[in-house]
Amino acid sequence: MEKFDLLTLGEVLLRLSPKENKRIVRSTEFESHVGGAELNVASGVSLLGLHTGIISKLPANAIGELARSKVRSMNVSDDYLVWDHTEDARLGAYFYESATFPRKPQVVYDRKHSSITRISIDEFPEDMYKSTRCFHVSGITLALCPEARTCAIEMIKRFKEAGALISFDVNFRLNLWTGAEAKACIEQILPYVDIFFCSEDTARLTFLKEGSLEDIMRSFTAEYPIQIVASTQRVVHSPKQHSFGSVIYEAKSDTFYTEQPYEKIDVVDRIGSGDAYCGGMLYGLLSSDMDCRKALAFGNACSAIKNTIPGDLPSSDLHEVEYVIADHNAKGPVSEMNR
Amino acid sequence: MEKFDLLTLGEVLLRLSPKENKRIVRSTEFESHVGGAELNVASGVSLLGLHTGIISKLPANAIGELARSKVRSMNVSDDYLVWDHTEDARLGAYFYESATFPRKPQVVYDRKHSSITRISIDEFPEDMYKSTRCFHVSGITLALCPEARTCAIEMIKRFKEAGALISFDVNFRLNLWTGAEAKACIEQILPYVDIFFCSEDTARLTFLKEGSLEDIMRSFTAEYPIQIVASTQRVVHSPKQHSFGSVIYEAKSDTFYTEQPYEKIDVVDRIGSGDAYCGGMLYGLLSSDMDCRKALAFGNACSAIKNTIPGDLPSSDLHEVEYVIADHNAKGPVSEMNR
Amino acid sequence: MEKFDLLTLGEVLLRLSPKENKRIVRSTEFESHVGGAELNVASGVSLLGLHTGIISKLPANAIGELARSKVRSMNVSDDYLVWDHTEDARLGAYFYESATFPRKPQVVYDRKHSSITRISIDEFPEDMYKSTRCFHVSGITLALCPEARTCAIEMIKRFKEAGALISFDVNFRLNLWTGAEAKACIEQILPYVDIFFCSEDTARLTFLKEGSLEDIMRSFTAEYPIQIVASTQRVVHSPKQHSFGSVIYEAKSDTFYTEQPYEKIDVVDRIGSGDAYCGGMLYGLLSSDMDCRKALAFGNACSAIKNTIPGDLPSSDLHEVEYVIADHNAKGPVSEMNR
Amino acid sequence: MEKFDLLTLGEVLLRLSPKENKRIVRSTEFESHVGGAELNVASGVSLLGLHTGIISKLPANAIGELARSKVRSMNVSDDYLVWDHTEDARLGAYFYESATFPRKPQVVYDRKHSSITRISIDEFPEDMYKSTRCFHVSGITLALCPEARTCAIEMIKRFKEAGALISFDVNFRLNLWTGAEAKACIEQILPYVDIFFCSEDTARLTFLKEGSLEDIMRSFTAEYPIQIVASTQRVVHSPKQHSFGSVIYEAKSDTFYTEQPYEKIDVVDRIGSGDAYCGGMLYGLLSSDMDCRKALAFGNACSAIKNTIPGDLPSSDLHEVEYVIADHNAKGPVSEMNR
Amino acid sequence: MEKFDLLTLGEVLLRLSPKENKRIVRSTEFESHVGGAELNVASGVSLLGLHTGIISKLPANAIGELARSKVRSMNVSDDYLVWDHTEDARLGAYFYESATFPRKPQVVYDRKHSSITRISIDEFPEDMYKSTRCFHVSGITLALCPEARTCAIEMIKRFKEAGALISFDVNFRLNLWTGAEAKACIEQILPYVDIFFCSEDTARLTFLKEGSLEDIMRSFTAEYPIQIVASTQRVVHSPKQHSFGSVIYEAKSDTFYTEQPYEKIDVVDRIGSGDAYCGGMLYGLLSSDMDCRKALAFGNACSAIKNTIPGDLPSSDLHEVEYVIADHNAKGPVSEMNR
Amino acid sequence: MEKFDLLTLGEVLLRLSPKENKRIVRSTEFESHVGGAELNVASGVSLLGLHTGIISKLPANAIGELARSKVRSMNVSDDYLVWDHTEDARLGAYFYESATFPRKPQVVYDRKHSSITRISIDEFPEDMYKSTRCFHVSGITLALCPEARTCAIEMIKRFKEAGALISFDVNFRLNLWTGAEAKACIEQILPYVDIFFCSEDTARLTFLKEGSLEDIMRSFTAEYPIQIVASTQRVVHSPKQHSFGSVIYEAKSDTFYTEQPYEKIDVVDRIGSGDAYCGGMLYGLLSSDMDCRKALAFGNACSAIKNTIPGDLPSSDLHEVEYVIADHNAKGPVSEMNR
Repeated sequence: MEKFDLLTLGEVLLRLSPKENKRIVRSTEFESHVGGAELNVASGVSLLGLHTGIISKLPANAIGELARSKVRSMNVSDDYLVWDHTEDARLGAYFYESATFPRKPQVVYDRKHSSITRISIDEFPEDMYKSTRCFHVSGITLALCPEARTCAIEMIKRFKEAGALISFDVNFRLNLWTGAEAKACIEQILPYVDIFFCSEDTARLTFLKEGSLEDIMRSFTAEYPIQIVASTQRVVHSPKQHSFGSVIYEAKSDTFYTEQPYEKIDVVDRIGSGDAYCGGMLYGLLSSDMDCRKALAFGNACSAIKNTIPGDLPSSDLHEVEYVIADHNAKGPVSEMNR
Repeated sequence: MEKFDLLTLGEVLLRLSPKENKRIVRSTEFESHVGGAELNVASGVSLLGLHTGIISKLPANAIGELARSKVRSMNVSDDYLVWDHTEDARLGAYFYESATFPRKPQVVYDRKHSSITRISIDEFPEDMYKSTRCFHVSGITLALCPEARTCAIEMIKRFKEAGALISFDVNFRLNLWTGAEAKACIEQILPYVDIFFCSEDTARLTFLKEGSLEDIMRSFTAEYPIQIVASTQRVVHSPKQHSFGSVIYEAKSDTFYTEQPYEKIDVVDRIGSGDAYCGGMLYGLLSSDMDCRKALAFGNACSAIKNTIPGDLPSSDLHEVEYVIADHNAKGPVSEMNR
Repeated sequence: MEKFDLLTLGEVLLRLSPKENKRIVRSTEFESHVGGAELNVASGVSLLGLHTGIISKLPANAIGELARSKVRSMNVSDDYLVWDHTEDARLGAYFYESATFPRKPQVVYDRKHSSITRISIDEFPEDMYKSTRCFHVSGITLALCPEARTCAIEMIKRFKEAGALISFDVNFRLNLWTGAEAKACIEQILPYVDIFFCSEDTARLTFLKEGSLEDIMRSFTAEYPIQIVASTQRVVHSPKQHSFGSVIYEAKSDTFYTEQPYEKIDVVDRIGSGDAYCGGMLYGLLSSDMDCRKALAFGNACSAIKNTIPGDLPSSDLHEVEYVIADHNAKGPVSEMNR
Repeated sequence: MEKFDLLTLGEVLLRLSPKENKRIVRSTEFESHVGGAELNVASGVSLLGLHTGIISKLPANAIGELARSKVRSMNVSDDYLVWDHTEDARLGAYFYESATFPRKPQVVYDRKHSSITRISIDEFPEDMYKSTRCFHVSGITLALCPEARTCAIEMIKRFKEAGALISFDVNFRLNLWTGAEAKACIEQILPYVDIFFCSEDTARLTFLKEGSLEDIMRSFTAEYPIQIVASTQRVVHSPKQHSFGSVIYEAKSDTFYTEQPYEKIDVVDRIGSGDAYCGGMLYGLLSSDMDCRKALAFGNACSAIKNTIPGDLPSSDLHEVEYVIADHNAKGPVSEMNR
Repeated sequence: MEKFDLLTLGEVLLRLSPKENKRIVRSTEFESHVGGAELNVASGVSLLGLHTGIISKLPANAIGELARSKVRSMNVSDDYLVWDHTEDARLGAYFYESATFPRKPQVVYDRKHSSITRISIDEFPEDMYKSTRCFHVSGITLALCPEARTCAIEMIKRFKEAGALISFDVNFRLNLWTGAEAKACIEQILPYVDIFFCSEDTARLTFLKEGSLEDIMRSFTAEYPIQIVASTQRVVHSPKQHSFGSVIYEAKSDTFYTEQPYEKIDVVDRIGSGDAYCGGMLYGLLSSDMDCRKALAFGNACSAIKNTIPGDLPSSDLHEVEYVIADHNAKGPVSEMNR
Repeated sequence: MEKFDLLTLGEVLLRLSPKENKRIVRSTEFESHVGGAELNVASGVSLLGLHTGIISKLPANAIGELARSKVRSMNVSDDYLVWDHTEDARLGAYFYESATFPRKPQVVYDRKHSSITRISIDEFPEDMYKSTRCFHVSGITLALCPEARTCAIEMIKRFKEAGALISFDVNFRLNLWTGAEAKACIEQILPYVDIFFCSEDTARLTFLKEGSLEDIMRSFTAEYPIQIVASTQRVVHSPKQHSFGSVIYEAKSDTFYTEQPYEKIDVVDRIGSGDAYCGGMLYGLLSSDMDCRKALAFGNACSAIKNTIPGDLPSSDLHEVEYVIADHNAKGPVSEMNR
């Protein structure tokens, strides 16, 4: 049996945020968080009980150690973390200040020239490709730099060849590449993808899709041997209150799965809630026989809950997610607190 | 004249909570609060200007001292705090993490084997029973352990005999006992109770009452020589927003008292808001000639305000509560800030 | 060309506030902020790119230095800060605890006998009056003490004579003077005022104006050679949620300017949001050829944003304010975060 | 029997200090402490187990309440706290930044015009004078303002007449009065004093005494009916390391008491350590039959320990002080930790 | 090859400490640390690069999860953590306040009735005993409760039988058992022990040994088949400054190893420094062919460094420890900072 | 008259440090400080009362704004700050963890590719060169990158030509360049230098000087038209306790100036204490007629005090430095606190 249920590849970042409601320009201290789209996904799946690992490159210094220690505390394996011993070694970082209406969120990226730009496929052992049931990566890794892109594309091919499911989240970031660049690159890998995460907006703006959301989702599976397409649907009522739901399409049964969205989510920290969706959804699939209904329930719940958690990483175990799902599906009033 | 207007009997607890929005599992520091259902009640009444005291047993160590110091700072008398010098002496504790929708609150109790389990009626002087106009205890004290239960029941009898009003709040906690256990035990003491706090839900589920709320409230006074019954009515719109009101029934005049509930309370910390209701209500009665209208106004206002206060204990003096009551009763717009 | 676009005269205060949601009476630490109505205005204008300075008197001690350092960090000139070397030298202070419904905000002023009460016009050089395009002061300075009042009235006259625009914000504070005192004093200076800030309530209650808001605004310009009158319109839905808009009247064109108010502002700290309005409005006028439409847009946006910023001082640069204005004027949905 | 063992009269102050090692001029938050020479003394005696109270006047606002709550938490009675309801009501404050060699400590006083300046002997009930075994006041109260001085001198006389021991600590502060003023004033009250605290330096510089310390101490008892004179001996090796000892002279037995000083005290916060000496010394006398040896041991130990406690107030109970005394007197090595 | 280099068995505790220099009785917040004698040892060895795991029982709640997450972050395996699902489940805790001369440290234990008292050997798989090269336990585990003692003794036998080295640290705690109890119990297991940690004081007071330290160390190996005996030598100059060294005796070569002690250690947190010694010493042995000189160097350095680290757990990687050892052994001045 | 007394050129950095005693690898929050060798110098001189400015390039984002705001708060002019609008714009950063014996300090630099690498002399106006009496730069700016080096060397020439004094601090950093590189580069600029800071170690190891310190200092003035050479002498007794003194050599009078060093400095944060020396020394020269004795006194005192200040920047005004100098020169005991 494979050692891991899920391996992911991606950059690990240090986030520095002012304390509650403070502004970056006036801060004299910052809370630090460790995150990264693919680490967030692996962490969410691990917290729910599956075995996961992160493939990445960290600087061989105390900040790299800080990141590794956080990875371990999430029960994500560090077997495939490699170390950058160059003089230029650095962990990518970003400063993040959350929004309060009508003030907008502020992100100051400082992730250029980081250690991930020195990653190479040669640093990873051949038996890694047989060690997992599923491999997940997002468009951010493709967009970061040529080295990460080359490594990611080659890994997708090798994991696919070794029999793993390939999961891919477009996760489009305009500050990293253009829509056209994203489209050209991603179309290279779609032939290998089994599980595809793409929001409706991205499908239209980046992949130039038209028609209804259903048409669009179905079209991806028509063009590529994709098994499952998932599209999240977030409504931002205010920076502090969102709604969240999603649609999952299963090609083999030509079925769309959806449920009532989570309304009036009290948003504490929205960063990573999209990744939490991927994590919950992949958990649902991998902990069952690819049950899209379970995937939908876990994806939506994990994302909704993540919005209430400070930092990039989720922190919900199986018990908590099942409790929230049960509440979400309950008819009638729900007691607020059991004691 | 009696030295105290109110004495209460109950466990004093240490609450440990993560800082704002953080989670227990990730915390590296905890805010500590001192609380306990009956201490909360005594504190609320004391802040409003009456003389109160708490009867309890504390461990003879620095944590017990921390608790006593907090008791004193609330102007609650420590005359009847006794000390546990055994090796097992400990202050009951609980960890509490507040909810953010759709995430639920989390309570981890660590109150077993605490010093209150070594309390005995023999530790308290006989003249204590004549020192107060009113004695209050809640169902939590009955449910905690046989020692506390025995002590509470005996004290109810002795205080009653000495001429004090007996106030009792059911405060049902499913994690401490079953509904059937609660019913059996509480029915033993109802013959001694003058002021009875019981929510509609508890009346139905625990005491197996049926009919309208009015029917239920009246029935308690029919079965027992209870003078006043109070039922709180909380609506939880979200963990951060509640409504709160109550109904008070006075047996001798066969009158129900109610007022427009507090709507859109911005909840910061709901713990202790039920106790704050008891405190405000008892203050209303004891500072007047048992005026149920005053009791209603103070009970509702004290509870509504407590929801905005971090920690278990209330912190509102008479001036503040009267100001909020005046605002609540005002017609037309109210200025937000006087300066 | 003048060295400054704006000079203001007013007291600089130290604010001490409990940390997030805590209460003054239980606090063991306080966050300190530097503020003051006129400093807040100068800071807002400076952040947007104009040259400003504050005229004030500070105690010659470490607290005065703390205040000066904050003034400098806002890029407000300290050229006209004078120092109080008396034994009584002190910075006025106030303690502020924000409101949570139904709890009211709490302000404890401790600003009596402060160094501003020893200010004298003789401490400032004659060439100061020719150094600025605009001079702004608020009614608070008039109300504080005879020394500040005398100094302010004389400065208004000298700046006017030297050719500066005179801006005046009534900023009525009942805890400093009565409406009748305010009316009598302010009517002395209105003959010198070009830009006049007065809310509808204050116009009615203090200046005893009647009729529609439009009538009232027009009447000020009829009675005095005032060019522009601005009235803010705040609606307090709850301490945590306000709406904010304003009306500006330009006498020469007999035109009223208004726009859709900012709705559902998530209020973090309302202190200084009125001053932020003055700052944005004066920036709009002074950075253009007295364009009231620009003044309206910047005034409303600056005030709306300030409500989201902890402390008395604004912190928004031109880029941020323009971004919020663009969002406010956008048709259709707006993306929450650019990344 | 008297209700109190000790009553003291003095101003209660709010101290605001930057967090550990920070500087006032750069601080954005301050730790707040409540203190005051005479409150510090009463608190120390109370913690050791005697009954004490503080006579003072507080502003009728939230800062006054904060102070009262701290008084209560120290188990010091607030029976004789009176309230200042004037518009000028304020709690005296000071900012304090501790020293680090070669940097000096920094004190910014902001205690002028405080509520204590409105104290009057008429505010206190006549039976207060019979309620205590001992009354203590320091030279600070005499120096503050004429109102406090008049009140203090009259209280000394009335307490004396009612049979209380009178304790007086010179506590000379050059920033409050001159040596000559102090001498003239204090010589008025020395005829009433039983227990007199005066350092050697103050005796020489203020009272113009000459000769050896023994000569000086004896001379006070020769000139006035003083029973006991105590002189502390602090050596400041560095701001972080002091030595502390004292000499006590008992007139009736013409005996000097001294012991080996506490060496290498790790100083965390020296403020209040002189008051802690008075507290320990008075405890020693009042808990025994005026045993000067016990007074010496407790005075020295309480002061030595106070240097390790943040804030103005001591925090040591009887157990802790006895433990430190036992260690101090132990021959041979002492185990660091019992566990 | 074995999966682990070291397994340890012991209770995991939550430590709650006031912030820097504060006192427990006045604290409103506590820093939390996870620790425990045997976890500390496993963590130290793991940080240096070997594979370790902890055998323990945790409560199945958020506090248990918090502990597990910390265990994982130290790279200590949680494969043998079992969960307590009983109603009584709790993590043992203690409150710790550090000393400042002449004030003593304060420890308030609250570890009774914890989940470790429900541990049973039946909860662990048989193949665990073959999975490690070394098993370490301390006297604390023996002293805690009969369940832990029985489990520990049986595990010692099974690990020994499976071929593991047995390491035992007496770690005598008078608050857990008497010297006589300790002696009787430990003598049962000494026949199985290979590596024995015992301080000179404990050897004399508990095991009633006499003669020189060398005699004592040798005598243990004479009576039992112990290979290596280690005795630490700490000198407490003040709570903030210690010296630390040790002696190691190897039976087979009849050799004593020692080196110049670490002088003038700036102690930040002494808790766990003895465990850090065991960790460094075991690392030295297990990473070499049982080289006592390496064990001595690593044991002393790890302990010396641990004193400078807040919390129970060490935090030094191989690079740091080697750097400190190199400095310790350097002749002549050492540069303070490389940059 | 020149507008500035001192202009400096250098990189502005963000420092991120764990809170008191914590370690980088375990931190979840960091204190942020702004610093940089030349900014530190300019700040020190500005605090003492002269006019200074910093020449640098900052990223056009919120972190750049944070840095500018700090520059302004130090009263250092931002007239010559230019902005980097490239996509790569970033503020150099470093993580710093202070030492506790025997643990070493830890510095993790993350300053590569920062905005200073895009600085060009063409960005600065020609009249800048005539605006100052003195220009200071350190070897760090030369070592950072070719762009900064080119800019610095050209500025030295232009400022020299415009008549400014040139001040240069070698400030050798082995992590930026080798000794040979430093020597070759610096020898190019020494012909322009008037005031030269070089420690004895650097003179020997980098410039390969031999003989006594006096010989070495004199030799620099023999080879180059240097007027003044200053060498600091720090002794590190432990990370928490240093001694500090210096020698200044004036070529024209062939005189060496020295004084008794500051002993037993309680070191809180040594970063920037060398720069504080330069600042104090330059203040001494520029505020007098190049009086080396004044320079010596201020240089030593400023550096000694800086060691007690958290952060990179000094915070001492003239009053404080003069007070410390007076204490340093005092005969006999010095009172610890004036109050």
